[in-house]
Amino acid sequence: MKHNFGAGPCILPAKVLDQAADAVRDFNGIGLSILEISHRTPEFEAVINETQDLVKELLGMPAGYSVIFLQGGASTQFSMLAMNFLQQDKKAAYLDTGFFSLKAIKEALFFGQVEIVASSKDKDYYYVPTGYQIPSEAAYFHYCSNNTIEGTEVFSVPATNIPVICDMSSDIFSRPIDVADFDLIYAGAQKNMGPAGMTLVVIKNSLLEKIQREVPSMSDYRIYIDNNSMFNTPPVFSIYVAMLNLRWLKEKGGVAQQEVENIAKSGLLYKEIDRNTLFYGLANPTDRSRMNVTFKAKDPALEAEFLDFASTKGIVGIKGYPSAGGFRVSLYNALPISSVEVLVKCMQDFETYILNKQVSLKNEVTV
Amino acid sequence: MKHNFGAGPCILPAKVLDQAADAVRDFNGIGLSILEISHRTPEFEAVINETQDLVKELLGMPAGYSVIFLQGGASTQFSMLAMNFLQQDKKAAYLDTGFFSLKAIKEALFFGQVEIVASSKDKDYYYVPTGYQIPSEAAYFHYCSNNTIEGTEVFSVPATNIPVICDMSSDIFSRPIDVADFDLIYAGAQKNMGPAGMTLVVIKNSLLEKIQREVPSMSDYRIYIDNNSMFNTPPVFSIYVAMLNLRWLKEKGGVAQQEVENIAKSGLLYKEIDRNTLFYGLANPTDRSRMNVTFKAKDPALEAEFLDFASTKGIVGIKGYPSAGGFRVSLYNALPISSVEVLVKCMQDFETYILNKQVSLKNEVTV
Repeated sequence: MKHNFGAGPCILPAKVLDQAADAVRDFNGIGLSILEISHRTPEFEAVINETQDLVKELLGMPAGYSVIFLQGGASTQFSMLAMNFLQQDKKAAYLDTGFFSLKAIKEALFFGQVEIVASSKDKDYYYVPTGYQIPSEAAYFHYCSNNTIEGTEVFSVPATNIPVICDMSSDIFSRPIDVADFDLIYAGAQKNMGPAGMTLVVIKNSLLEKIQREVPSMSDYRIYIDNNSMFNTPPVFSIYVAMLNLRWLKEKGGVAQQEVENIAKSGLLYKEIDRNTLFYGLANPTDRSRMNVTFKAKDPALEAEFLDFASTKGIVGIKGYPSAGGFRVSLYNALPISSVEVLVKCMQDFETYILNKQVSLKNEVTV
Repeated sequence: MKHNFGAGPCILPAKVLDQAADAVRDFNGIGLSILEISHRTPEFEAVINETQDLVKELLGMPAGYSVIFLQGGASTQFSMLAMNFLQQDKKAAYLDTGFFSLKAIKEALFFGQVEIVASSKDKDYYYVPTGYQIPSEAAYFHYCSNNTIEGTEVFSVPATNIPVICDMSSDIFSRPIDVADFDLIYAGAQKNMGPAGMTLVVIKNSLLEKIQREVPSMSDYRIYIDNNSMFNTPPVFSIYVAMLNLRWLKEKGGVAQQEVENIAKSGLLYKEIDRNTLFYGLANPTDRSRMNVTFKAKDPALEAEFLDFASTKGIVGIKGYPSAGGFRVSLYNALPISSVEVLVKCMQDFETYILNKQVSLKNEVTV
């Protein structure tokens, strides 16, 4: 039994994995694998339509929005959204909250000017800036709602009268949002939605009127909408597993119920980090992410030892991002609270073990 | 038991599907699914490296080439290759052999000028042009080696001194090629390589020196090479299944053995098309594709009837592309010759059934 705290591709519900495995052998009893059916079959059309409907229902989407599925991950969206919506003579406003927001900024610069409205770089991105102004003449405002590497989350949507574009790769479907606050939401699937290989985009149809640049077909949001995400062969299996996963989320009560669980899971872990004498949290308490919990050992020499200690309990995926160091514990939707309990117990046992070791060392020296 | 003649996503070997299903439940016995492991694990690094090695070995790749895996299908390559290699002041030379070659041309036009060196449009693309000149000052020459919709295949590489770029989406790994003839080969995975969601690119490293335009990271071949195709999260599962499929191809004797089988399979079917009094082939005999066999009924009224007749024998995926009509039978690597035998027998039975019906109708009228 593994407790998978990986940052993505990450844990998926056991039930979803079972259903996916069955469909790889025989999809819905039709005598063919989900891997070997054409996307132009009625069987797959039912899959893609149900996946869209589940996205709409779970996000409580109002009318006037489209749901499309693309390839290339959020990283492809970084450039594609600017190619479509950063008009030649305009600048775009970006909030700089860390590693992935910076990547988005870098790609936007291929297409126009960027104004960084605020940055938390001064404190290694361990807080979310507030009190900044978003210029009303900018083409759009872009931010990343959850920063996987740094462990911060932006819980309230910044107020502005310009289009809001949000990278929700790592916290979509983790809590209720008001889609009406956004003009474009994008998310790589490999956290709360499904396996790697698919990107979800939710787009307000009126935003499409802002496209001025001529863009290649595979970079044109309108082409995806007009072709129900099947202008070319879509990532059939990734969409199918996302459908299974969203069904699972709906059955358990949707994003409202999921938020309750995510608050409980992250609360339990942050409480232990704050209590445990060996560790300290990295993110500003009010900006702490419920998805990715970052912390370090007060004595850096203990970090490798804790990783070993934890791995003997079946705990995997808690090593921090290389550039950040320390630990990053991801608590995505499919992770049960029992896994968090195992980790908390492990942190407590490790504390006892280390303290005892220090006491016995002290005794030896004293003797 | 289904006989899957679909054009893609298409049939995969039963053994590969079994292994893939097992890995969705538990990957290599590590207690995690292949869908929930990070691409930054040693386990996945072994997968991507073995997949690359198998591509190199099966294609007999010389030194000086790189193998990368991308997302977005061949359709994304249509624009990406032009963005990288069609320099501002140059034109690119394209061979127009049908539906997908035209799509590639359309996307190249976003980045520069295109010269169509030859086209078979005059005969609905049912032949491959020859005897044309490729301008030596063009940035590159592009062609599609197998035309899935029309059912033609380009068996010899056109001679030229400029870089050759080839869309091999539907015949890669179906027969030996000399990689040294090409500067860039690309292929959507969902025919002879694996499930949809991954694109293979084989690129001559010296071609990279021709990149002049500044391109976004996810459209820059150099970024994929420098990051071993993991600049961002790759399509983990699609790459894994491609590895299983290429292992299967290697075990059975590689592309040379596969070509023998593909000649036998397509030969059997074309022989029946030529013999059967009800059908006729669409492609010029010397340009007939071994992967996609296109034909029609001499009496169009019989086509729907034959589709029904065939479906009762478990035959699926033989309906022609909507714009082409008739039938398209795909004979990709994983399709066993026994399925072709079933189809041939079905065509013969259908002929007998129709001829008998006509005889009995004639008798009724005579009486």
